[in-house]
Amino acid sequence: MSISFHIDSSSGQARGGRLLTPHAEIETPVFMPVGTVGSVKGVPQDILEDLGAQIILGNTYHLYLRPGVATVRKLGGLHGFMAWRRAILTDSGGFQVFSLNELRKVTEEGVTFRSHLDGSSHFFSPESAMEAQIGLGADIIMAFDECTEYPVDRARMRASMEMTARWAARSKKYFEEHKREVPWGEVSSLQFPVSGPKGSGNQKLETGNSTQSLFGIIQGGMDRELRKESAERTIEIGFPGYAIGGLSVGEPRELTREIIESTLEHLPKDKPRYVMGVGTPDEIVEYAGLGVDMMDCVLPTRAARHGLLFTSEGKVSIKQARYAQDSGPLDPKCGCRVCQRYSRAYLRHLYASNEVLAQVLNTIHNLSFYLDTMRRVRHSISLGEESRFLASLWSRPKS
Amino acid sequence: MSISFHIDSSSGQARGGRLLTPHAEIETPVFMPVGTVGSVKGVPQDILEDLGAQIILGNTYHLYLRPGVATVRKLGGLHGFMAWRRAILTDSGGFQVFSLNELRKVTEEGVTFRSHLDGSSHFFSPESAMEAQIGLGADIIMAFDECTEYPVDRARMRASMEMTARWAARSKKYFEEHKREVPWGEVSSLQFPVSGPKGSGNQKLETGNSTQSLFGIIQGGMDRELRKESAERTIEIGFPGYAIGGLSVGEPRELTREIIESTLEHLPKDKPRYVMGVGTPDEIVEYAGLGVDMMDCVLPTRAARHGLLFTSEGKVSIKQARYAQDSGPLDPKCGCRVCQRYSRAYLRHLYASNEVLAQVLNTIHNLSFYLDTMRRVRHSISLGEESRFLASLWSRPKS
Repeated sequence: MSISFHIDSSSGQARGGRLLTPHAEIETPVFMPVGTVGSVKGVPQDILEDLGAQIILGNTYHLYLRPGVATVRKLGGLHGFMAWRRAILTDSGGFQVFSLNELRKVTEEGVTFRSHLDGSSHFFSPESAMEAQIGLGADIIMAFDECTEYPVDRARMRASMEMTARWAARSKKYFEEHKREVPWGEVSSLQFPVSGPKGSGNQKLETGNSTQSLFGIIQGGMDRELRKESAERTIEIGFPGYAIGGLSVGEPRELTREIIESTLEHLPKDKPRYVMGVGTPDEIVEYAGLGVDMMDCVLPTRAARHGLLFTSEGKVSIKQARYAQDSGPLDPKCGCRVCQRYSRAYLRHLYASNEVLAQVLNTIHNLSFYLDTMRRVRHSISLGEESRFLASLWSRPKS
Repeated sequence: MSISFHIDSSSGQARGGRLLTPHAEIETPVFMPVGTVGSVKGVPQDILEDLGAQIILGNTYHLYLRPGVATVRKLGGLHGFMAWRRAILTDSGGFQVFSLNELRKVTEEGVTFRSHLDGSSHFFSPESAMEAQIGLGADIIMAFDECTEYPVDRARMRASMEMTARWAARSKKYFEEHKREVPWGEVSSLQFPVSGPKGSGNQKLETGNSTQSLFGIIQGGMDRELRKESAERTIEIGFPGYAIGGLSVGEPRELTREIIESTLEHLPKDKPRYVMGVGTPDEIVEYAGLGVDMMDCVLPTRAARHGLLFTSEGKVSIKQARYAQDSGPLDPKCGCRVCQRYSRAYLRHLYASNEVLAQVLNTIHNLSFYLDTMRRVRHSISLGEESRFLASLWSRPKS
């Protein structure tokens, strides 16, 4: 067995569960911080553990280009390479190939693209994307999909959705034939300590007996019928978990919600459901309320680097001069190590002075806010408070 | 009382002691990490505490320009502003005015200089430099001195040394008249936790009853006679501690050592002796062996940012391709959180990928190496092992 998913409680459409992976047990709904090239930018791994991050996301496209799959494989996969013993998910590389490459060339076989680092030419197919993800050795990996731009005409949406379905079948075939090649057998020479996630046991599957899990991705643009057809075709291929991709690409927020809600109706209730690349704190609460189990987003980490901080009182742009002599904490209701120690004036000074510590502290706070938010969502679900948790958790002006 | 210095043990010329300041007790000889604008670049304050940093240095020039003395004063001085409850020392601003300003204009009254940030014109005199340092509120502050370039003719050396002596008298006069204006009475609204330094008590003077301490600075270039005269004139003015300034400005290392050794002969044995702006790990060991009690240097933090790491096996340039698949720790003999967890391959990848975590982890390791080195020096002195400690601590090719 490579993954197991148990729903412990539900409240309306929302569900609280446990996802057992080879490296860690994950309480769901879960938010996954993004560690693009093997690092959640600016945050040491032990602090991520302290924050309660249960699973982080790595980007196959970036890691494939640097340091390269062979290097990561040799160091024992991403877990050994970046010294992270909890769970990891990698995306398929598809989204980055499409978003970072204007000169890409797509055929039925796969995608030819140029490296954003040095312009060198590369090729990703469902098979090579699986090969890369098996070498990286995350607990959960993703089928290779095509992402379309927004807005786009329906013919293009349909063609892309259909190719994604064919690529999903090829992804699964390659994965099934090669999944035993995951580099978990190799042991790091460093025996770093691992503390258990706060408030949860440290249960996990044995890596020795298990393999990675490959999730399918539903596409179909902003068309409910195409999404339904994509879900049916992907389920027919059969995966232990399903993601909804191709959202948060510029469409209005109401449309995102509508597509998520309608697509979820077509996904199996007993499998984890993952919405890729969303969202703001209120969005992740909202989508958890719809029954989404997993989410990831660069927003907390990227916004932190631009001095945009999420707090219980709304968004704070810490660069503003109004905070220059503000001796209070960033968020009076936050228990994170940043809010417990530093003043807004200090955080503002670090940002204004271009100090690296600004990025470090801002990112720690924003991740703490996201992870705390999801912790409260899980708690509310376990108490059956669905009707109240949206209101109580996010009773502030919408950002 | 504002400072008290006790020598507990000695071994040859080296001495092991305790320096009691209003905010913390410091075990000497001590290395002081540099936190230029209120942050040791990239390292959160709680990690500095864990590393055992007992006292850090702030740069008056930088803090005066940004965020400005009034802001720091309003937030309770540097301790409150940067949420650091252990000891702090500020330099006088003199060195930066001279090293960062080619268009400065020096008169007997003081120095007119331009901000490196926006080109605006400013003026530092002994009086205004004291005013700034009282507002910043460090435990130990420095007299305003003139630094000369290297090499320089003897007439210029003498003139500069003599002006530094006159400025020292003016610095002391202003300080004595205004030292009660230190902003320690104002309490931060944040009550962050403070853990005691490892392996020492948390003794300190009461801030309520005490003031800052002003140290004098010996100048005189590379001339032993001028240094002797500078020491005599500075001692005549009278300070609770003495620094040797104007070294590490490009002169050969042998000359640095010669000037330190000869100048120390003229300084009182019962007062702390501080050599400013030195040095490599082997240099700080060497100077501690000569009887120096305090040192600071940007080298560990600046080198870290360039991927140069100090280890028990010598210097490591982590950017080199030879480390790309090296699964071993940076320094097998180091117990720091970086060496205990991450591989050389990972550190090399972070550096090559321009990840902010590279600076964070590299700086933590280099500071750990420096602070550990000084800890071992203190231990050796306490055991009376002077004759062996240089050899045993630094038995590697000179860097």
